[in-house]
Amino acid sequence: MSEPIRLGIAGLGTVGIGVVKIVQKHADLLAARAGRKVVITAISARNRAKNRDADLSAYEWADDPVDLARRDDVDVVVELIGGDSGPAKALVEAALANGKHVVTANKALLAHHGQALAEAAEEAGLSLRFEAAVAGGIPVIKALTEGLSGNVMRRVSGVMNGTCNYILTRMESAGLPYEVVFDEADKLGFLEADPNLDVGGIDAAHKLTLLAAIAFGTRPNFDAVMIEGIERISIDDIRHAADLGLRIKLLGVAQMTGRGLEQSMTPCLVPVDSPLGQLMGGTNMVVLEGDSVGQIVLRGAGAGEGPTASAVMGDVMDIARGLRLPVFGQPAKQLIDAPAGRTTAAKAWYLRMSLMDRPGALAKVAGALGEAGVSIDRMRQYGHEDTSAPVLIITHKTTRDAIDHAIALFGHTGVVTGEPVALAIEAG
Amino acid sequence: MSEPIRLGIAGLGTVGIGVVKIVQKHADLLAARAGRKVVITAISARNRAKNRDADLSAYEWADDPVDLARRDDVDVVVELIGGDSGPAKALVEAALANGKHVVTANKALLAHHGQALAEAAEEAGLSLRFEAAVAGGIPVIKALTEGLSGNVMRRVSGVMNGTCNYILTRMESAGLPYEVVFDEADKLGFLEADPNLDVGGIDAAHKLTLLAAIAFGTRPNFDAVMIEGIERISIDDIRHAADLGLRIKLLGVAQMTGRGLEQSMTPCLVPVDSPLGQLMGGTNMVVLEGDSVGQIVLRGAGAGEGPTASAVMGDVMDIARGLRLPVFGQPAKQLIDAPAGRTTAAKAWYLRMSLMDRPGALAKVAGALGEAGVSIDRMRQYGHEDTSAPVLIITHKTTRDAIDHAIALFGHTGVVTGEPVALAIEAG
Ligand SMILES: NC(=O)c1ccc[n+]([C@@H]2O[C@H](COP(=O)([O-])OP(=O)(O)OC[C@H]3O[C@@H](n4cnc5c(N)ncnc54)[C@H](OP(=O)(O)O)[C@@H]3O)[C@@H](O)[C@H]2O)c1
Ligand SMILES: NC(=O)c1ccc[n+]([C@@H]2O[C@H](COP(=O)([O-])OP(=O)(O)OC[C@H]3O[C@@H](n4cnc5c(N)ncnc54)[C@H](OP(=O)(O)O)[C@@H]3O)[C@@H](O)[C@H]2O)c1
Repeated sequence: MSEPIRLGIAGLGTVGIGVVKIVQKHADLLAARAGRKVVITAISARNRAKNRDADLSAYEWADDPVDLARRDDVDVVVELIGGDSGPAKALVEAALANGKHVVTANKALLAHHGQALAEAAEEAGLSLRFEAAVAGGIPVIKALTEGLSGNVMRRVSGVMNGTCNYILTRMESAGLPYEVVFDEADKLGFLEADPNLDVGGIDAAHKLTLLAAIAFGTRPNFDAVMIEGIERISIDDIRHAADLGLRIKLLGVAQMTGRGLEQSMTPCLVPVDSPLGQLMGGTNMVVLEGDSVGQIVLRGAGAGEGPTASAVMGDVMDIARGLRLPVFGQPAKQLIDAPAGRTTAAKAWYLRMSLMDRPGALAKVAGALGEAGVSIDRMRQYGHEDTSAPVLIITHKTTRDAIDHAIALFGHTGVVTGEPVALAIEAG
Repeated sequence: MSEPIRLGIAGLGTVGIGVVKIVQKHADLLAARAGRKVVITAISARNRAKNRDADLSAYEWADDPVDLARRDDVDVVVELIGGDSGPAKALVEAALANGKHVVTANKALLAHHGQALAEAAEEAGLSLRFEAAVAGGIPVIKALTEGLSGNVMRRVSGVMNGTCNYILTRMESAGLPYEVVFDEADKLGFLEADPNLDVGGIDAAHKLTLLAAIAFGTRPNFDAVMIEGIERISIDDIRHAADLGLRIKLLGVAQMTGRGLEQSMTPCLVPVDSPLGQLMGGTNMVVLEGDSVGQIVLRGAGAGEGPTASAVMGDVMDIARGLRLPVFGQPAKQLIDAPAGRTTAAKAWYLRMSLMDRPGALAKVAGALGEAGVSIDRMRQYGHEDTSAPVLIITHKTTRDAIDHAIALFGHTGVVTGEPVALAIEAG
């Protein structure tokens, strides 16, 4: 047996304590599988006095997490604080500068600073691993970076934010409006401190950024992700969708198009009985499509103590077993800067908008669609009480560009109030 | 960049040629991802003169595949001949004896000789990898051995033979009897040379054996798998199942029970709308359940040139990148010899049998069930023309032991003709 591998864990919240529990509970199994003991030597969090759900008395305490990076008795720094700057960033940088491998669950940090951190890790010959940052317990980073490394990837897609999926699922099952379910989710502790990270689609877009970099050999480029959150999805949208045999999901798609790398995280419609359509609550699903392997679908819990800690431990075990890989699957310096592209694939679209209740209003909307080259499959105006009338349109297959053009034209009709909701209908 | 990694490929059939194509087509991508070139130096198959779908002129030819193991210009022997003895076994043994890493897609070989081969590989400090042996392109060996290595596994299950699933799916969709669809599958080239490997459940049981060894740290023990094939599934069973909202799948289950390691590969019933129930054609699905991660579901093509070659390449890339792991995730010498156990979990069962058309026959069957402690949920006797009457029984939840007891008692009633078909109803 080799020397034990020694962890310094910063952040003792949901995920951090989950990791401590696995290391304590499965010491023998981990040693058998890694060929060496896995031990924790030092820990850090904000509040030393806080009562935590584990016995931490055997570990050295650091008030400043960055101290973990400087300890001689730490081989791997496990960063479970979170946030794209502040102590998490300082710690990871210090760890790599001090010859420590890093395992993190921090998608925000890597989506924003992944390129620089990967270059630092690779120059120092260190591992920087982040399985837990994407889709919780599902070993999707490993599947993509290692298992499918013989493939040119065509497309990566999926539902990657459990909280959004919980909210959308619950709105449908309980027939409750967005605001009510949002408050419920908040009370249940499902939302990030800044809820916009969840419902604004940002957290999921962080994850997509990382998957896209690995899949397409591109520098992680969060700013190029087209992001729409779920905040404008109404209970009416959920009901209209159900009438059409569809369900709304916050769907991420990354693919190389003729015009560059498309990255989008937007609410879409999928058939109720499709694999994505059947995904309820906090479950995540990632679909990986490669030129040889075809389509691989991975499903599992996207968050939570056990699943996320399982993913962190997978990375720790890889490092303990000696696996050394470039952070994004090929040397960071070789990653290319892909221009942001948009698919020209034609899809049917769902459009919901409010029209002023005046003669000819519908004709003006139809005219705008025609001018943008969008043809209408179905159109329905709902009964209403106030002065604006809800209108629902399903288009024939058309491009996102054409839809955006049409929506711009709506603004000039003088009859569309507020911003229309536009959702692509995907295969699911 | 390090030295190129040099492959000697034995077997140039479906999978072998698939691997050659990837190495040729994606040379630059593989080099970028592995940090070194991946090259083929030597090949072997039975018939040198055969016209194959790839340009092989640059590679050294060996008439005897075992010669690949002795070449100085081969680092990794890729065994794609197949079979649990003969040249495949001789080649893998020679490779490990001569300091070559081995990648294979050969589940039969490993299910029967995995323990000895793993010990040989580990003593020599070599890799022996077999991702392609289980569930085609799905990186399930990797997920289980590496990604979930922080978990005590609870259960591994799934549909792992695409041919059986194709036959069952096609029987239902075309309303055709087993024999007709079997002949179709044979003409389409879907069946192994010995079709009993497929329809007899043996190929799928080989795969389950390998998954169980990794999941539970046990010596691979194929002889302990309870195997039933799909040969006795009739179109009537398919129809009765459909009437009940169920579908028949050849389902593998491995789990540690209080009585030992349960391994079974048997036709079961699952709800039509469950993930397993929706699995059509040659697709495979594997469900991994761990104490921290919960349930992870992986789906993808279970066979075919591209998917299987993708899995072989994943292993080759791991070796090229320097990953060295025990064959079954922990040192082979530490694997334990688990007694064969059977779950005592109670399930509802589907029983179909033929009764002699005589008064009191049904009562005798009901009596046998009662004696075995099995209570009946539903029972139905079908109209018939000859002298034996088909009877269908759905039981309340009971154990496999009780069902076996009841079936033994049926033999003494003197009214049950032939062997009853007994299928557990699973959650899917
Ligand atoms: N929770 C999940 O299901 C999940 C899933 C995937 C990824 N992640 C990621 O995992 C990371 C951790 O998430 P979490 O849910 O475990 O968070 P959490 O429960 O809020 O825990 C955060 C921990 O960081 C500590 N911390 C905060 N600021 C600190 C500072 N300045 N110095 C030292 N320690 C500090 C906190 O200390 P105190 O306890 O003393 O306040 C706490 O222990 C995040 O990057 C998150 O995005 C979480
Ligand atoms: N096909 C799949 O989808 C799939 C999926 C998963 C795993 N696998 C596994 O992959 C392996 C290969 O399967 P396959 O479908 O590629 O088989 P295949 O198409 O039948 O090819 C077998 C190859 O082995 C060669 N061979 C046979 N006997 C030989 C001998 N004595 N010496 C040298 N070469 C010999 C054959 O040579 P000739 O061409 O000259 O006859 C042929 O090239 C098997 O272990 C199988 O179980 C296959």
